[in-house]
Amino acid sequence: MDKMFDYTLYLVTDRGLMSTEILETAVEKAIEGGVTMVQLREKEASSREFYDQSVRIKKITDRYGVPLIVNDRIDIALAIGADGVHIGQSDLPAAVARTIIGREMLLGVSASSLSEALQAQLDGADYLGVGAMFHTGTKQEAQIVSMEKLLRIRQTVRIPVVAIGGIDRGNAASFRKAKIDGLAVVSAIISQPDIKDAAEELKRLFLEGVTV
Amino acid sequence: MDKMFDYTLYLVTDRGLMSTEILETAVEKAIEGGVTMVQLREKEASSREFYDQSVRIKKITDRYGVPLIVNDRIDIALAIGADGVHIGQSDLPAAVARTIIGREMLLGVSASSLSEALQAQLDGADYLGVGAMFHTGTKQEAQIVSMEKLLRIRQTVRIPVVAIGGIDRGNAASFRKAKIDGLAVVSAIISQPDIKDAAEELKRLFLEGVTV
Repeated sequence: MDKMFDYTLYLVTDRGLMSTEILETAVEKAIEGGVTMVQLREKEASSREFYDQSVRIKKITDRYGVPLIVNDRIDIALAIGADGVHIGQSDLPAAVARTIIGREMLLGVSASSLSEALQAQLDGADYLGVGAMFHTGTKQEAQIVSMEKLLRIRQTVRIPVVAIGGIDRGNAASFRKAKIDGLAVVSAIISQPDIKDAAEELKRLFLEGVTV
Repeated sequence: MDKMFDYTLYLVTDRGLMSTEILETAVEKAIEGGVTMVQLREKEASSREFYDQSVRIKKITDRYGVPLIVNDRIDIALAIGADGVHIGQSDLPAAVARTIIGREMLLGVSASSLSEALQAQLDGADYLGVGAMFHTGTKQEAQIVSMEKLLRIRQTVRIPVVAIGGIDRGNAASFRKAKIDGLAVVSAIISQPDIKDAAEELKRLFLEGVTV
């Protein structure tokens, strides 16, 4: 990966948590509010539904020049010409994912421990999604990562690190000290009555530590 | 596709319907009974579970020289170096699937009408899975294809045709007259107490029209 990515505010979608019924609307508002990357996550839909949805979302992200990452489904990422894929620990092995996508496509990997982080880097990950930082409704079974562990991972790996899991306006500013590359957010953007405002505030809190 | 495939008895897996707890055992017995192709279908497992399962099954199909096809998940087919993918009408569009897998990998497409069959052929399908021929517990919502429609599809397309859906020892011989290339079978093999015997009988019924 020679291309540079801006991980500052990384929106991860979840259709079950949306404050609007239309994902395209939510994504567009989030981008207008300052989201720098978008990851499409869809665990319930059929492959065709996920594909069709991805095609529609890519038109929006392309228009704004925002990278689009597909969660888990490498075939759909390849099919729509996404900028990358994000792989969890229960998805394909990261090293296998890398062989399928080649060098040009971004590979993100979820990690909840230092050993997973180091393994992911070794397997060819371009960035890490570290979490869950807090308990969350999105992934209730997720293992919690302490701020100390996040710092340790950040100090150990050389690839970009994004924190994920329960990040919202109440804690976003606390991540400034971790010197990570960005925050990945689901409900604190997509479930909010004003998606654009929510994204703007989170970005400001992370970058400047000040509340509106 | 220049390679020749033998579609005569095409096993489609379903872990929920198995008479044994171990899929590898079931597949191996089915191959010993005369199964000529295997399709791994897995709608419930995580990507990692499906991948791990596919790797294990491929060791068996490779040992017997039987082609292995992956249902829906093109990424997993690419990851394990499967012989092909099988795409249903709610999976990725067949033409898109073809662009991802290239020319060398087999592309099977499900069709339940003449128009779907012709479209699939146009989109680059190497063979068709036509059905459901009968009501089945595996896909209860499936549209039923009459024997007349199967004959019509067989007479219209130039690619191999396999019938699927509720095919068992009671009706396998009736497909001889359709001059199709094979029968795709789920529960009539995988749910049987003696998987090898069941496969042998189905093959004989389809090829010779005689019961054991």
